[in-house]
Amino acid sequence: VKTALNVVIIGVGLIGGSVSLALKASGVANEILGVDRDTNVLSDAQRRGVIDRGFDIAGDEWHARLAHADVILLAIPVRQIPEVLRAVAPHLDPSTIMIDAGSTKQDVIAAARDALGLKLAQFIPCHPIAGREVSGVSAADAGLFQSKNLVITSFAENSPATIERARRFWQACGANVIEMPAATHDAVFAAVSHLPHMLAFALVDDLAARPNAKTLFSFAASGFRDFTRIASSSPEMWRDVALNNRDALLSEMDAYLAHAQRLRDLIATADGDQLAALMQRSRAARAKWLAGDLDGFRDEAV
Amino acid sequence: VKTALNVVIIGVGLIGGSVSLALKASGVANEILGVDRDTNVLSDAQRRGVIDRGFDIAGDEWHARLAHADVILLAIPVRQIPEVLRAVAPHLDPSTIMIDAGSTKQDVIAAARDALGLKLAQFIPCHPIAGREVSGVSAADAGLFQSKNLVITSFAENSPATIERARRFWQACGANVIEMPAATHDAVFAAVSHLPHMLAFALVDDLAARPNAKTLFSFAASGFRDFTRIASSSPEMWRDVALNNRDALLSEMDAYLAHAQRLRDLIATADGDQLAALMQRSRAARAKWLAGDLDGFRDEAV
Repeated sequence: VKTALNVVIIGVGLIGGSVSLALKASGVANEILGVDRDTNVLSDAQRRGVIDRGFDIAGDEWHARLAHADVILLAIPVRQIPEVLRAVAPHLDPSTIMIDAGSTKQDVIAAARDALGLKLAQFIPCHPIAGREVSGVSAADAGLFQSKNLVITSFAENSPATIERARRFWQACGANVIEMPAATHDAVFAAVSHLPHMLAFALVDDLAARPNAKTLFSFAASGFRDFTRIASSSPEMWRDVALNNRDALLSEMDAYLAHAQRLRDLIATADGDQLAALMQRSRAARAKWLAGDLDGFRDEAV
Repeated sequence: VKTALNVVIIGVGLIGGSVSLALKASGVANEILGVDRDTNVLSDAQRRGVIDRGFDIAGDEWHARLAHADVILLAIPVRQIPEVLRAVAPHLDPSTIMIDAGSTKQDVIAAARDALGLKLAQFIPCHPIAGREVSGVSAADAGLFQSKNLVITSFAENSPATIERARRFWQACGANVIEMPAATHDAVFAAVSHLPHMLAFALVDDLAARPNAKTLFSFAASGFRDFTRIASSSPEMWRDVALNNRDALLSEMDAYLAHAQRLRDLIATADGDQLAALMQRSRAARAKWLAGDLDGFRDEAV
């Protein structure tokens, strides 16, 4: 891996800032430029030493800097990606790779196909599995990706060498890189990430609207706190994820709501045996997962 | 508060064991006896110094010891409480108070009315808001109740002096004691505790039954871990809670499922503005709650 990378990070938030800090900490960064819509964020990020210099995305000064970049990272909500891809495309040098950090992948690939033309192969779709419920560059953390999974969902046009550059970039950030098809990615993360986020947002919003919300929240304790932690996540980011992974997420929500309704009906009919059995299956599955013992789980093609 | 309490703890698990350790740590305990259905648990608890001596609940040796108790604590799943109340009743000395630690209160009070006859006033219903997803005496912790809420739902027959003894008992364990009516308790905890437990159990069980469960769990990360932490809780305890607080819990589940369905429909209709607004309300409510700023929440009688 080249050890003096010039990097342009578009979107200097939790993810963009953490990538920058991780690259600096690992010693592979030469110069890291930040591009953002918020100039206060840029000056804050520069003052914190997260980026070397910042550029307002509304200006065009940053376009000329793209030619010097080894890697361009898009760390923005996924519905902003198409417009930024179109802005970057004319300035994308053949020696540069472009990667993203979006939580959805089929939509991002479609946007890249639309925007990049003959430069499509230079774009490698990526998703670091390392979110936090706090957002913004003030939460950036050089260790955010350490030993976390990073999914690459490359497509036919990507060359092995280009994919390898993306892989090494994320490995330099500490991540464990895994490849899978974009459709698999979107289905898997609809179930294990996007769905729980929606369920947590729904619970807090449900209770906060109640006439006795003050009483309810005054007795909410650690179980509620952990269950709803992800309901503190960025609304802009998660609106975009929900809209851009709509089909997979609706499928997951419908499956979940039907299963929760079954549990509800076990309570309604006072079927204690089936209720305890469901809870026991859930506890056992979670215990095996926490122990890293996944061999007992079903592993069939879907 | 009397400083050499003789205590009998029926049910030597996480809660019973933690109470014992807390009383010993605060120096108010004279002798603490444990009663349990599992003699291995009793010998383990005695070896760990959690209890001074253990008695098999299936025997009757412990009945004679109840006469010497200042406090009898029932720390067992709520559907076991009626039978234990009936077993204790004949041996309950007028100088003894009996308390419980169940997560539901109207059912426990009804059971006490059935079982205790003229001794009813000696029973003070209590609920420590200090659960953990791990169960068993091996997880017992002297600090479990420290600065946690403890709800007393006393009823007309309880005397102020008796309630005060229960209050001081829990204060000796470090808890912050609050009183409320049992019906209020059951409605509030159906919303902020029982409901999230059901939702977490349903999610893990839903995903664990999938053909691709192994893949799903291999990519589940910290958001999923925290959302489902409470799905590792005791099935026996939570089956009992669900059945014994059925009406309030069904009402909460129906309200939640309807709200989650509304969120689902916002995704289906791609209503990004309403979706982001819901998420923003949820994030803002949670931020206020975490900051201890509940004044903005609605506070109306229900």
